[in-house]
Amino acid sequence: MNLLETIQTPADLRQLSIEQLPQVCDELRQYIIRELADNPGHFASSLGTVELTVALHYVFHTPEDRIVWDVGHQAYGHKILTGRRERFSTNRKLGGLKPFPSPEESEYDTCTCGHASNSISVGLGMAVAENLRNGENEEMRKVVAVIGDGSMTGGLAFEGLNNASSTPNDMLIILNDNDMSIDRSVGGMGEYLHKLHTSSTYNRLRYSASKALYRWGVLNDDRKGRVLRFNNAVKSLLTNQRNMFEGLNIRYFGPEDGHNVVELVGTLQRIKDMKGPKMLHLHTIKGKGFGPAERDATVWHAPGKFDPETGQRIKSEPGGQMPPRFQEVFGETLLEMAREDKRIVGVTPAMPTGCSMCIMQKEMPERVFDVGIAEGHAVTFSAGLACEGMLPFCNIYSSFAQRAYDNIIHDVAISHLPVVICLDRAGLVGEDGPTHHGAFDLAFLRPIPNLIIASPMDEAELRRLMQTAREAGRGPFVIRYPRGRGVLTDWRCPLEPVSIGTGRCLREGTGQTAVLTIGPIGNVAAEAIRESGLDVAHYDMRFLKPLDESILEEVGKRYQRIVTIEDGVREGGLGSAVLEWMADHGYKPDIKRLGLPDHFVEHGAVGELHRIVGLDKESIKKTLPPALPC
Amino acid sequence: MNLLETIQTPADLRQLSIEQLPQVCDELRQYIIRELADNPGHFASSLGTVELTVALHYVFHTPEDRIVWDVGHQAYGHKILTGRRERFSTNRKLGGLKPFPSPEESEYDTCTCGHASNSISVGLGMAVAENLRNGENEEMRKVVAVIGDGSMTGGLAFEGLNNASSTPNDMLIILNDNDMSIDRSVGGMGEYLHKLHTSSTYNRLRYSASKALYRWGVLNDDRKGRVLRFNNAVKSLLTNQRNMFEGLNIRYFGPEDGHNVVELVGTLQRIKDMKGPKMLHLHTIKGKGFGPAERDATVWHAPGKFDPETGQRIKSEPGGQMPPRFQEVFGETLLEMAREDKRIVGVTPAMPTGCSMCIMQKEMPERVFDVGIAEGHAVTFSAGLACEGMLPFCNIYSSFAQRAYDNIIHDVAISHLPVVICLDRAGLVGEDGPTHHGAFDLAFLRPIPNLIIASPMDEAELRRLMQTAREAGRGPFVIRYPRGRGVLTDWRCPLEPVSIGTGRCLREGTGQTAVLTIGPIGNVAAEAIRESGLDVAHYDMRFLKPLDESILEEVGKRYQRIVTIEDGVREGGLGSAVLEWMADHGYKPDIKRLGLPDHFVEHGAVGELHRIVGLDKESIKKTLPPALPC
Repeated sequence: MNLLETIQTPADLRQLSIEQLPQVCDELRQYIIRELADNPGHFASSLGTVELTVALHYVFHTPEDRIVWDVGHQAYGHKILTGRRERFSTNRKLGGLKPFPSPEESEYDTCTCGHASNSISVGLGMAVAENLRNGENEEMRKVVAVIGDGSMTGGLAFEGLNNASSTPNDMLIILNDNDMSIDRSVGGMGEYLHKLHTSSTYNRLRYSASKALYRWGVLNDDRKGRVLRFNNAVKSLLTNQRNMFEGLNIRYFGPEDGHNVVELVGTLQRIKDMKGPKMLHLHTIKGKGFGPAERDATVWHAPGKFDPETGQRIKSEPGGQMPPRFQEVFGETLLEMAREDKRIVGVTPAMPTGCSMCIMQKEMPERVFDVGIAEGHAVTFSAGLACEGMLPFCNIYSSFAQRAYDNIIHDVAISHLPVVICLDRAGLVGEDGPTHHGAFDLAFLRPIPNLIIASPMDEAELRRLMQTAREAGRGPFVIRYPRGRGVLTDWRCPLEPVSIGTGRCLREGTGQTAVLTIGPIGNVAAEAIRESGLDVAHYDMRFLKPLDESILEEVGKRYQRIVTIEDGVREGGLGSAVLEWMADHGYKPDIKRLGLPDHFVEHGAVGELHRIVGLDKESIKKTLPPALPC
Repeated sequence: MNLLETIQTPADLRQLSIEQLPQVCDELRQYIIRELADNPGHFASSLGTVELTVALHYVFHTPEDRIVWDVGHQAYGHKILTGRRERFSTNRKLGGLKPFPSPEESEYDTCTCGHASNSISVGLGMAVAENLRNGENEEMRKVVAVIGDGSMTGGLAFEGLNNASSTPNDMLIILNDNDMSIDRSVGGMGEYLHKLHTSSTYNRLRYSASKALYRWGVLNDDRKGRVLRFNNAVKSLLTNQRNMFEGLNIRYFGPEDGHNVVELVGTLQRIKDMKGPKMLHLHTIKGKGFGPAERDATVWHAPGKFDPETGQRIKSEPGGQMPPRFQEVFGETLLEMAREDKRIVGVTPAMPTGCSMCIMQKEMPERVFDVGIAEGHAVTFSAGLACEGMLPFCNIYSSFAQRAYDNIIHDVAISHLPVVICLDRAGLVGEDGPTHHGAFDLAFLRPIPNLIIASPMDEAELRRLMQTAREAGRGPFVIRYPRGRGVLTDWRCPLEPVSIGTGRCLREGTGQTAVLTIGPIGNVAAEAIRESGLDVAHYDMRFLKPLDESILEEVGKRYQRIVTIEDGVREGGLGSAVLEWMADHGYKPDIKRLGLPDHFVEHGAVGELHRIVGLDKESIKKTLPPALPC
C-alpha cells in the first residue's frame, strides 16, 4: 500500500504510526526523484530534508504551528505533504506551483523564503508575537525556523540569533547542516559546525567529564571548600562556554542524524514544549538517497532533466554550436585578464560555480575568495582589497545585491574605490520567480554618485566592458548581465575597452522614432525593428551612468518619439534617466518606456514572462509605429 | 611641559618613552573635553578610546600600518594625534574637519567609517591584499580593525569574522567593549561578552583548571591510559570550545583593561607579529575620565555644548515655545496609538533614544524591541511579527535603512505585510555628513511594488500619516521625515487619517507655474512663494507612491511649468515620478526638478548645505519666475 497517496494534508500524516514513517520518507524521496527527473528544479536540497519534513509535520500541528523554511529549495517535500502533491508536476512552471514557499499559495507556507538566512528573524517575529498574545496559554502555537549551515554564514542569521537570545520566545531553530551551500560551505562557521560534528564525543563528554570529576573524587561534598574555586572553573567551562549557541543563551541539542526519522520524531517531541529559544543541530546529506547527487551535490543542486534510473543528466541542447552563457564569458574573461594583471582578484558570495568564477579559482585558488552567503561582506571586503591597490571583481546575483546596497554606497562609492561589481542574473530570471528576478538594480544603483553602470548587449560587449573596467581603475564600475545564453557563438573578441559613457548607433533612422536600449534586450529590439520594416533608429546605450549625452542630444533633436527598453523596472531606470535628461535640456519628444511593471513578476520561462510584461519581440513591434498614442 | 603639543604626527609620539604615555593620554583626554565643550560632537566614545588610540599609534607604524576604525565616533583622539590637532576646532563644521575619518582628509584615515560594523570586512580586505603581495616579507604591513561591542551585533561584523577565520591574513581585531551602543548594547552577543568579562576568572581558570587536574593527580603520566578519554574531553573543553571567537579560529586575548596604556602597549607588542587572525578584547568605559559622561553615556554620546568644569549641558534654545523635534512627535504618537491598539509594537535597531521610541518603551517595555545594530533583522523581524497579526512600527534612520533594502523587498513587500517603516533622519542631516545624509530613500524605495511611501510636511501631518498607516493595515507603509524640529508648536492634532495617495493644494494659482513638494521642504517652498509675490500654485504631494493622479492631471492640464522640490536625490525621486507620469499621460509641461545633486554632499549645518545644493528659500525663489529657462 502506498502511504504517500493517502496523505492529502499533514493531518493525514499524523494518523500514521511512527513505525510507518520510514516508508513515508522512502516514498516521498522516490516521488521527488521521479518528478524532478522530468520537471527540473532544485533537487539535492529537498532530498536532504525528507526525514526532517516528515518529522516536523508529524510532531507539530501545522498549519497552526509555524514552520519557517530558509530558502525554499529544500521545501519540495513540504509542498508534497501539504496538499500540493497532485499539482507538483506544475512546479516552477508558468501558472503552476511557485518555486519557493509562498503564503499566497498555501496556509502551510508561512513566509516568503527565496533569499537565504532570513528564517531565524522571521521565526523570531512570529514567536515573539505569539508570546505577547498567548504567553500564558499552554496551547500556544509553536514556531520552528529551519536554517542550513550555508545560510548561517549570512549576517542576517547572526542578527536573528543575537536577538533571539534576549527576547522572550520559545522558537525552535533547526540547523540543517549538510556542509554545503550550492558549493561547499566556507568560513569559520562551517568549520566550527564541522568540529561540533566530528568531535562526535563532545556533547557526551561534557557530561561525562563532570561525572568523572566526581568519580575521581575531585568533586565531592567533603572537599567542598577546597574545590569551590575549581568548581566555578568547571561550571564556567561546562555551562557558559559550552558552545557558541549556548554562549548566546540558545539551548543546543545535537548533533543528530537528520535521516533517522524515528529518532528525530522522538527528539522533537522531547524538546518541542521547552521554554525559551533552542536549537537542534542535524547532520544531513545533500542529495541523500540518490547516489549521483550524494557524490556531487553542487552539480545536482539544480541538475535539469535526468534519467531517474541511471542518474544520467539529459542535455536538452540541440545540435550545433550554442552561444555561451554570459556567466561563462565572465568566468573565462576574468581568468584571461587575471593572468595578465596581478591586481585582479575574484570575490563571490557562495557562487563560484553559479557565476563561473570557479574557472579562475581552479587555476589561481589563492586569488579567488568565496566568502560564503554574505553579499554585504563580499562588497565591503572588496573595498578593503581595493584600498590596498587590488582590483577586485565582485560577482553577485542581481537580486542578492539588494543585500549589499549600503556596502556599495558607504564602503565603495563614497570612497570612490575601484571595485568592479558584476551583477549576474540581472533582469527576469525565469522559473525562480519574484524573489530572484534582478528587477531593481538599474533603478537602485543609478542614484548613487561615483558609480559607472554598464550593461553589455552581447558576449563580446561583456568582455569589452570588463576590460574597460579594468583599465578605468578609478572608482566603482558595475556591469549587469542576465542569466542564460548570449547571441554570439564566436565571442572571443580582442579585449579592447570602450569609452566610458558611450553608446552605439546600431541603426540610423530617418523616421520619427528612435529606440534606446540597454543590455541584451537590445537584441530583441533589433529583431523587432528589422521585422517591422519600419524606418526606426536604434541605439544601444551601453551605459546607464554616465549617459551618452551626444546620443541623447542627437535623438532629442532629430526624433519626435523615443522608445526606451530595459529588462528592469520602469520606475527610475533607463527610461527615467532619458526623461530626466530631456527635461533638463529642454527637449520634448514623446517618450515611451518599456520595462518591468510595478508589481512582482511571477515565475515561468523567461520568454513567457517577457511576453506577459511586454518585452518580447511582438510587443516591442507594436510600440514602433509612430501613429500609436504614447 | 605639555607633551601633546609636541606631537604633530604619530612618529613624534613614538619618540616618547612608554612612561610618558599616561601623561599623553591625560592631556589628550583633557583636550577632547575642552574642545567638545565648545564645539559639539560625538563625545563619550572618543573618551573611551584615548588609551587605545595612543597605544595603537605608539606600537604600530602608522600610516604604513593600517588602523581601521569602526564608526568614526571614537576617532577624535586619532585625528588629534595625526596632524589635525590645530584644525580640530573646525571639526564637523562646513569646510572643516570631516565628522568621521576619511581617506580624502588624511593618509592616517584608511577608509570611510560612518556606518557601524564594517571594520572587520574592510580590514580583512586590506590584510588579505597585503598577504597576497607581501606574504613572504617579514616587514609586511600590519592591519588593525577596531570594533565596538555594539557594532558586533551587526551581521556584517559576523560575516567578516566568519570569513577572517578561513582566509589567509594576519589581521588584529580590537574588540572595544564598553557595553554600549548609543543606548545600552542588547542581545546575546552583548551578554556573551559580558560573561567573558565578569567571569573575570574565566581566562585564568581555563589554565588553572588543567593545572589543578594535574595537581590533584587526575592527569598524570602514570594514569595516562585511564584518563585518556577524559583528557580528550578536557582538551575539547579547553581548546575547541574556549570561546566563540576561538571556535571561529580567531586567536583570542583578553579581556584586558583598555584604560591602562602601559599594559596595553605591552600586550600589543607581544601579539602584533603573531600570524593569523587574532582578537584582543578590551574593557573600556564610554565617557571615561569625565564623570557625568561615565554616569550617563547615552546622553553624553553627543551632548551638545557643555561646561567642562561643572559638566552642566548648555541649552542653546532661545526663550519661548519651540516646535518639537519630529522624532518626539513620532515617539509620543506611537505611545498614544499603542495604548489604544494592542497590535502595535515598536522595533528599533539600537536607536530607542535616537528615534524617541524610548517614550513607548518606558510605559510598555514588553512591546518595544531594541534589536541591536541590525537594520536588516529589524525589518525581517518586523515581517515575522506582522505575519502573526501584529502591527510593527519599525523605525530606522534613513541612511541606515540602506542596510535593510533586501529585507524591505524580500521579506516585507513581496508578502505585502503590514509593516510600518518610519525613516527618521531623511534628507540632509547636517554635521554628520555624507555617510549619514538620508539622500537616497525616496529613489531606492519608489521602484518597490506594494509599498506606500509618504512624507509629512509638518508634525501634525506626521501624526495623521501614522494614523493612516495604522488604519490601512494592508501592506507596507513607509513614512520618511527629517532630523530636527518641525514648524508647529501646537502639534497635537486629532489622530485623523488621510486618504492614501492624496496630496493637498496649499495654494491655488492662475499663473503658469505649479510647485510640487514632498515633506518639510514644502515649508521652505511655501515661504519662498509667499515672499516672491508671484502667482504660483503649490501642492504638497504627501505621497510619493501612490501618486495623487488627480493633482497631476490638474497640474498637467493647467500649468506650463512644474517645479518639483524634494530633500533627496534628483535621480529617481519625486521629480522623476512626475516626469514619468506626465510622459505616460501625454502632458508636456516644462519640468524643473530641485533636489540633491549627483555627488555626495559634505557636512555642515543643514541650512548651509541646503543653500549650497539650492534647496534654501532664496534658491527656490529663483526657480519660480516663468521667464527663466527650465
